[in-house]
Amino acid sequence: MKTQQFVVIGLGRFGSSLALELMELGYEVLGIDRNEDVVEEWSHLLTHAVVADATDEEVLKSLGVRNFDCGIVAIGNDIQMSILSAILLKDLGIKTVVAKAISVLHGRALEKLGVDRVIFPERDMGIRVAHQLVTPNLLDYLELSKEFSIVELKVPECLNGKNVGELNPRAKFGCSIVAIHRESGIIIAPTAMDYLAAGDIMVIIGANKNIEEFEAVIND
Amino acid sequence: MKTQQFVVIGLGRFGSSLALELMELGYEVLGIDRNEDVVEEWSHLLTHAVVADATDEEVLKSLGVRNFDCGIVAIGNDIQMSILSAILLKDLGIKTVVAKAISVLHGRALEKLGVDRVIFPERDMGIRVAHQLVTPNLLDYLELSKEFSIVELKVPECLNGKNVGELNPRAKFGCSIVAIHRESGIIIAPTAMDYLAAGDIMVIIGANKNIEEFEAVIND
Amino acid sequence: MKTQQFVVIGLGRFGSSLALELMELGYEVLGIDRNEDVVEEWSHLLTHAVVADATDEEVLKSLGVRNFDCGIVAIGNDIQMSILSAILLKDLGIKTVVAKAISVLHGRALEKLGVDRVIFPERDMGIRVAHQLVTPNLLDYLELSKEFSIVELKVPECLNGKNVGELNPRAKFGCSIVAIHRESGIIIAPTAMDYLAAGDIMVIIGANKNIEEFEAVIND
Amino acid sequence: MKTQQFVVIGLGRFGSSLALELMELGYEVLGIDRNEDVVEEWSHLLTHAVVADATDEEVLKSLGVRNFDCGIVAIGNDIQMSILSAILLKDLGIKTVVAKAISVLHGRALEKLGVDRVIFPERDMGIRVAHQLVTPNLLDYLELSKEFSIVELKVPECLNGKNVGELNPRAKFGCSIVAIHRESGIIIAPTAMDYLAAGDIMVIIGANKNIEEFEAVIND
Amino acid sequence: MKTQQFVVIGLGRFGSSLALELMELGYEVLGIDRNEDVVEEWSHLLTHAVVADATDEEVLKSLGVRNFDCGIVAIGNDIQMSILSAILLKDLGIKTVVAKAISVLHGRALEKLGVDRVIFPERDMGIRVAHQLVTPNLLDYLELSKEFSIVELKVPECLNGKNVGELNPRAKFGCSIVAIHRESGIIIAPTAMDYLAAGDIMVIIGANKNIEEFEAVIND
Amino acid sequence: MKTQQFVVIGLGRFGSSLALELMELGYEVLGIDRNEDVVEEWSHLLTHAVVADATDEEVLKSLGVRNFDCGIVAIGNDIQMSILSAILLKDLGIKTVVAKAISVLHGRALEKLGVDRVIFPERDMGIRVAHQLVTPNLLDYLELSKEFSIVELKVPECLNGKNVGELNPRAKFGCSIVAIHRESGIIIAPTAMDYLAAGDIMVIIGANKNIEEFEAVIND
Amino acid sequence: MKTQQFVVIGLGRFGSSLALELMELGYEVLGIDRNEDVVEEWSHLLTHAVVADATDEEVLKSLGVRNFDCGIVAIGNDIQMSILSAILLKDLGIKTVVAKAISVLHGRALEKLGVDRVIFPERDMGIRVAHQLVTPNLLDYLELSKEFSIVELKVPECLNGKNVGELNPRAKFGCSIVAIHRESGIIIAPTAMDYLAAGDIMVIIGANKNIEEFEAVIND
Amino acid sequence: MKTQQFVVIGLGRFGSSLALELMELGYEVLGIDRNEDVVEEWSHLLTHAVVADATDEEVLKSLGVRNFDCGIVAIGNDIQMSILSAILLKDLGIKTVVAKAISVLHGRALEKLGVDRVIFPERDMGIRVAHQLVTPNLLDYLELSKEFSIVELKVPECLNGKNVGELNPRAKFGCSIVAIHRESGIIIAPTAMDYLAAGDIMVIIGANKNIEEFEAVIND
Repeated sequence: MKTQQFVVIGLGRFGSSLALELMELGYEVLGIDRNEDVVEEWSHLLTHAVVADATDEEVLKSLGVRNFDCGIVAIGNDIQMSILSAILLKDLGIKTVVAKAISVLHGRALEKLGVDRVIFPERDMGIRVAHQLVTPNLLDYLELSKEFSIVELKVPECLNGKNVGELNPRAKFGCSIVAIHRESGIIIAPTAMDYLAAGDIMVIIGANKNIEEFEAVIND
Repeated sequence: MKTQQFVVIGLGRFGSSLALELMELGYEVLGIDRNEDVVEEWSHLLTHAVVADATDEEVLKSLGVRNFDCGIVAIGNDIQMSILSAILLKDLGIKTVVAKAISVLHGRALEKLGVDRVIFPERDMGIRVAHQLVTPNLLDYLELSKEFSIVELKVPECLNGKNVGELNPRAKFGCSIVAIHRESGIIIAPTAMDYLAAGDIMVIIGANKNIEEFEAVIND
Repeated sequence: MKTQQFVVIGLGRFGSSLALELMELGYEVLGIDRNEDVVEEWSHLLTHAVVADATDEEVLKSLGVRNFDCGIVAIGNDIQMSILSAILLKDLGIKTVVAKAISVLHGRALEKLGVDRVIFPERDMGIRVAHQLVTPNLLDYLELSKEFSIVELKVPECLNGKNVGELNPRAKFGCSIVAIHRESGIIIAPTAMDYLAAGDIMVIIGANKNIEEFEAVIND
Repeated sequence: MKTQQFVVIGLGRFGSSLALELMELGYEVLGIDRNEDVVEEWSHLLTHAVVADATDEEVLKSLGVRNFDCGIVAIGNDIQMSILSAILLKDLGIKTVVAKAISVLHGRALEKLGVDRVIFPERDMGIRVAHQLVTPNLLDYLELSKEFSIVELKVPECLNGKNVGELNPRAKFGCSIVAIHRESGIIIAPTAMDYLAAGDIMVIIGANKNIEEFEAVIND
Repeated sequence: MKTQQFVVIGLGRFGSSLALELMELGYEVLGIDRNEDVVEEWSHLLTHAVVADATDEEVLKSLGVRNFDCGIVAIGNDIQMSILSAILLKDLGIKTVVAKAISVLHGRALEKLGVDRVIFPERDMGIRVAHQLVTPNLLDYLELSKEFSIVELKVPECLNGKNVGELNPRAKFGCSIVAIHRESGIIIAPTAMDYLAAGDIMVIIGANKNIEEFEAVIND
Repeated sequence: MKTQQFVVIGLGRFGSSLALELMELGYEVLGIDRNEDVVEEWSHLLTHAVVADATDEEVLKSLGVRNFDCGIVAIGNDIQMSILSAILLKDLGIKTVVAKAISVLHGRALEKLGVDRVIFPERDMGIRVAHQLVTPNLLDYLELSKEFSIVELKVPECLNGKNVGELNPRAKFGCSIVAIHRESGIIIAPTAMDYLAAGDIMVIIGANKNIEEFEAVIND
Repeated sequence: MKTQQFVVIGLGRFGSSLALELMELGYEVLGIDRNEDVVEEWSHLLTHAVVADATDEEVLKSLGVRNFDCGIVAIGNDIQMSILSAILLKDLGIKTVVAKAISVLHGRALEKLGVDRVIFPERDMGIRVAHQLVTPNLLDYLELSKEFSIVELKVPECLNGKNVGELNPRAKFGCSIVAIHRESGIIIAPTAMDYLAAGDIMVIIGANKNIEEFEAVIND
Repeated sequence: MKTQQFVVIGLGRFGSSLALELMELGYEVLGIDRNEDVVEEWSHLLTHAVVADATDEEVLKSLGVRNFDCGIVAIGNDIQMSILSAILLKDLGIKTVVAKAISVLHGRALEKLGVDRVIFPERDMGIRVAHQLVTPNLLDYLELSKEFSIVELKVPECLNGKNVGELNPRAKFGCSIVAIHRESGIIIAPTAMDYLAAGDIMVIIGANKNIEEFEAVIND
């Protein structure tokens, strides 16, 4: 699976970040952008980077795009170019085509055209940041469903030295500590005897309303 | 805590998404944008929305911005405006100022000016999507450290009907199932007797390399 | 059938000509264009004409576009707007959606999105004019298949006063005269006794190569 | 006649389509456009294609334009350039000059300057498409006069298996079937014994009101 | 004749100067320009001045342009607008239409369209100024033919106090003094006894080469 | 005198026409323009033509502009460039500097800066054309003073065959015929016995009001 | 003298700063700028501020500009407007006209047109700052001639507690201390007995090379 | 100290003037500007001049900017670029960073980012010129404090031939003459016996209100 090849169309902030991360994860990435300066900037960081018009079928064919496993249309603001590129990637037979959308209608168009996954990076990041802003101590979170989440919470001073058994969030609030993260390492599935220190990060799983209650109590 | 007030400067895709989520979470939001059309579009969805130049100190004062708990500079591409707005928010005495950056150097400037948290939404989303692309069945993930993550994996056909005890990922791969998510609800901290069904989502915690191994095996 | 209602999006040269002809044929037409001057120019010639953004779903709904029998996307050069309008018309439930395309790829996108008929007016007109240019006397033609056509030919001096029987194109060239068109009227399915006059227009049906032969002879 | 040479000025959608069709019909075509990219795109499809300013008399002379049989001014939107090119073509002594017009006044100017034929491709195509939209089953048509047309109609289910004699449109509606077109070939001037099959295309000649009546009946 | 009415289209430097001079000569002038500021500037100096598009036939009709005696198309640099306006003025039945041209080809187009007189103000003024530059003392001149001119020459010091008889340019150089212009008035057809004073202006008629010779001698 | 050298700055319509006429009159001309295309167009028609910035003193020096007899600033619409070039020409010591002005204030600035002669080509041509328009038969004219002119009038039919003595404009109208111009040549200072033929051109000198009277009578 | 009136044309950074300082010094200032926003910004800080075109003579007259004592043309980058405004101010009879120049040639034009004083603010400030940068302790300076200056130097630690007599710069370096400036006040023409404290500012007069020597020694 | 090296970013009017003065004072200067033409203009006048983007850290490093003693950010109007360059210069470890600001808020940002000195050249020059305008005879001045200044005053006619003792400004007005500047040289610290001549420049030190009084008296 490690030999997968990705083609990323559009090397703006989102596209270049995605392409670099794929490189770091050990995959091969072909980057395509219309802008020469942009391509030059990224060319030595990707497997290949070329200046090309991704709405020109001949160009995509000559680049051998049809042999890639996955195509990502990461074009910033040009809906027309995004749509036409996505069609070409699908028509060339790429198995998985992912595309960034900048509006609901744009997203709908991409889906109708057979794009496998439509992403709204700025909208999603806005939602993510909103959650982090309203919860003091919340470092990050993973939404499991509308009602359940996993959250990372900083251990406040008031819990310093307490062990998981004393705290017992499962019994008291209906949510569990699945890990404790401190500088020296991570304790997965801590036992009742594991101690918390101020500054540690607790990873909690539970219903949102239970986590909120728990959080409100420890912040009092 | 529920009466917190946020001011969001810049109602583009990131800013508006963040502002709406804050509204949905029950907070008060003042949205500011220079563009009249943009403000009109969002005005009925936020507590207040005004057309204003956020680099004009007098204007920010007259809007009472100093009384807000948190300011978010979500300005899209205008680094100058982003920096000058951030200075004003800090100088007006807002406790927490968060700002979006579009380049490393922009981020460095914001930090030097005292911004409490700098966000790179498109870069972060690029990284996030890269991870999802390279792991079939990966639905979402939470990075705990460079080495540990929590991931959501779809249960493949080959595991249909097996129970957690049989699978025993903790013993075999060093990673734990902390929840099973299916249409009928979420099982938190499942026991060895809980069964998996194809299409369920397993929430796994563990070292990345262990999760990868586990994932490779179940996809064989 | 006479009470059919059409909505025409884009009142440029193609769209306005189409809309006017529909009016003349006795149908109701709603014209939509973003450009105020354009709408003013056509407003008194169509049933209704409004300035509106046809990529805004709310706007289209408020105009009652869903009740129209047929939607024509006649947008000139803006592929993005053409595609997004077409999606909305389909989603609103209009039975027949026709759209103008300006490139092969644009046309492919429209078809994938479910547009019922894609038109290339300038390409088609180019082909049509090419045919008329290469055939002296050819006034118009109707292509029945790759090999058969109906053509209108001016009767040259050399045929003046001959009757259809003398000429007998069916026997000599394998093509038939289906009508003779002169100032005083049209003779449909002329008999062998009907006379031709220089300047009359013969309507000929036959295989292209036969018509060409016939034409070459009468122009000698 | 087959060695005719055409010069096409302006290789936009209309001009390039016309030029290609002329090539396909076996003629020689010189394409001229100011835009280098456009010329490069078409150069291998035409006899010659050059980047040139068609309002520069010396340039046209040096290209030997005076020896061409027919000049087509297919310039898109630049009325000034269209008019000046047309004057030059006429002054250089080209026998037939055809020009595309984009407005009534533009067309009037071209005619006054001696252009032999003025074409309004988008206006004409708009009219053509309007007719096709309002007549279910109408595939194409040829207008013989204001009152008479030849039309192609799809044979509906209800006529399946009937022969021309039974149908007898001449007697009943005053219009004749001049051909029947089916996958296996075209029957010209069908006899009363020829059968119709659903999906065949009937080519009908007659007065418009008669054709309409006939069409209304068979669609009941 | 004094009640003649002129319409001047285009109130730039040339058009406004022409219109003002016509006003000063006692005629009625309607000025038309697309630019509101320009019209406002001249409106109180002309009989009427209106903001209008002179390529819109309806507009020209509603202004009653057809009743004017003479139309001047003084449009600066927009060849298209100049040509279309000129057509409309002719079609509306104005007896005399004069138009400014900015290139030879533009001038040719105007003539073909029936414009009664085509003017090249900057070209003509360039020629005029060239003549004045190369002849010291030449104040102005009127070209009668390629070979004959009337010129105004300043009387140099060396001729001060001489009378026409002494000078006798007719006998010596073949050119005549038709007038002497001094501060106190003009002497038409001076006699041999009329004296010249330095600074007077002699009006000379003759062949160019004779005038040149004469001029060379008096400047020695 | 024939070896005079002129430098013309700005090769637009006025400047190029002036430069060409100077060439035709036998002088040497250096043309300067910022625009490469313009310079290329005129380079083979002038002694020299160079692409240069005429507001750069070093450039003008290196072109040896200081050795020219006369400099003409014929810059079209850029007042700044016109003024700065004029200063440099004066400072370089050119004896005569002539400049085109496009507004009264521009002209005032040029005069204050020591320009020897300021020209308003379009304004002057406007005045000239106005006179020609209001006088039927007037072909050209030379204004001697506010009250006196020399005019060229076409001889109307009614004067055909009359001799100058019969006509006697001097006695009857106070204006003299100084020349008669016909196809066969020019008669200077015609005698009473010289005949006029319809279509000849009379050159008349006199007070404007006398010429007008004369003209009104002969046009009755 | 206190009732002097100034008109400042151009309210950019230089013009507005100058105008405000004049206000602070107790004079009346009329500010003129073409830009409405700019005028609004300064209108409440100046005696009057108006939106006007300073190259329109009528406008300046109607503002009564001729009655002002001094006019300052502080126009930023538009040389043409600067020159034309300056001419108008002089022609209106304003006694003193000062103008900002942005290039040597611009400055020369202004002088030739009679501007009383030409200022190069950015060039002068560049020179000023250069001097301050190269001399540690130099706070400000006044150039008396090419060779003599008055400078402000910070008293370094090594001179703390010394009196002027001990230091005796006049004898040792040929330059005098004309004042000592400390927080408590300024000592003008200090005597030999006046003490210096580190952090005081000495005001020194002398030849540049002497001051430099003195400065080098005290910084050792 | 003479071997100090300066890097000047932005070679506009302020930056180039500063750079040239530093060169003249004997220092080494590296000039950086994004504009190729600008760099070419100054390259032979500075130690080095390069075309570079001063917001690109790699570029600044490769130019060895970290080894310079002082960096001046003299960027004209681009606040973003000014701020980002300033950060980089500080981060590269340059000891002294000076930057030009164009607004109060811009200046505040630069200070917060650690810029050692912020300059407002046009504001400062405006203030400076204002002082010179309101004091007849004032040639230049140095502000020592809000209340004390050193000024240069022209000696008026009425003081011609008086000696310093007679004038005795110290006793009469509380201000001293520290130097007399005349064509033949400068007298520093003049004695009571030194004579003044009309046209000499007196350098006066004193309280502003005393200088004003003195000035008012000598101008009576």
